[in-house]
Amino acid sequence: MQPDRSHPLLKIRIVFGDDEMMGPGKAELLERIAATGSISAAGRAMGMSYKRAWSLVETMNAMFATPVVTSTRGGAQGGGASLTEAGERVLGLYRAFEARASDAGGDLVEQLQAMLSDMSDRK
Amino acid sequence: MQPDRSHPLLKIRIVFGDDEMMGPGKAELLERIAATGSISAAGRAMGMSYKRAWSLVETMNAMFATPVVTSTRGGAQGGGASLTEAGERVLGLYRAFEARASDAGGDLVEQLQAMLSDMSDRK
Repeated sequence: MQPDRSHPLLKIRIVFGDDEMMGPGKAELLERIAATGSISAAGRAMGMSYKRAWSLVETMNAMFATPVVTSTRGGAQGGGASLTEAGERVLGLYRAFEARASDAGGDLVEQLQAMLSDMSDRK
Repeated sequence: MQPDRSHPLLKIRIVFGDDEMMGPGKAELLERIAATGSISAAGRAMGMSYKRAWSLVETMNAMFATPVVTSTRGGAQGGGASLTEAGERVLGLYRAFEARASDAGGDLVEQLQAMLSDMSDRK
């Protein structure tokens, strides 16, 4: 989703510890894994290397008590991957938090938006 | 503020356009400029180069219809800087948004937190 001025985008990172955080990139990766059944396809769709996508999955699997993604690293077909129940729950909680924040603070975002300069050709 | 597991930290970025965003770094910079009266001192306190701090201030000043920081680039003393009324308002709205998000979604963050693994020696 591209930000535009009429629809500001919220990027929310919940930081539990130095290497323990949940943010928009991980959430999108989980969503795309659920949709494609593949860690590499999910990463590719986000312009991410295979290695990077795997590393994010490993970070999440270590971060939570129950792994969020199950996968078979597999030969020619590249294996398959899906979200565990815990993974669906993590994703759902994160998306729900985004929605709550947006609902609760929407008027404040609008007030900030109203203060923006009129330039529209900025890149 | 360091994140720790008992007090997860929210990092919220409000994205209005490609180069128009307000997040925790800019908010802290504004706060420190108000506190120190100096862009370079504010940046230094955040481990930021003089150039980077100025560039962030220029980005914010261009992004909003009214500049958020006024400054005199000045000789030996390094000049002085302070927030304009608009700057105080931007900072206040951003901090209020953070507080609203945290209040509205605190229970969801707690649920995520409860799902973390027990490892405590992770760096």
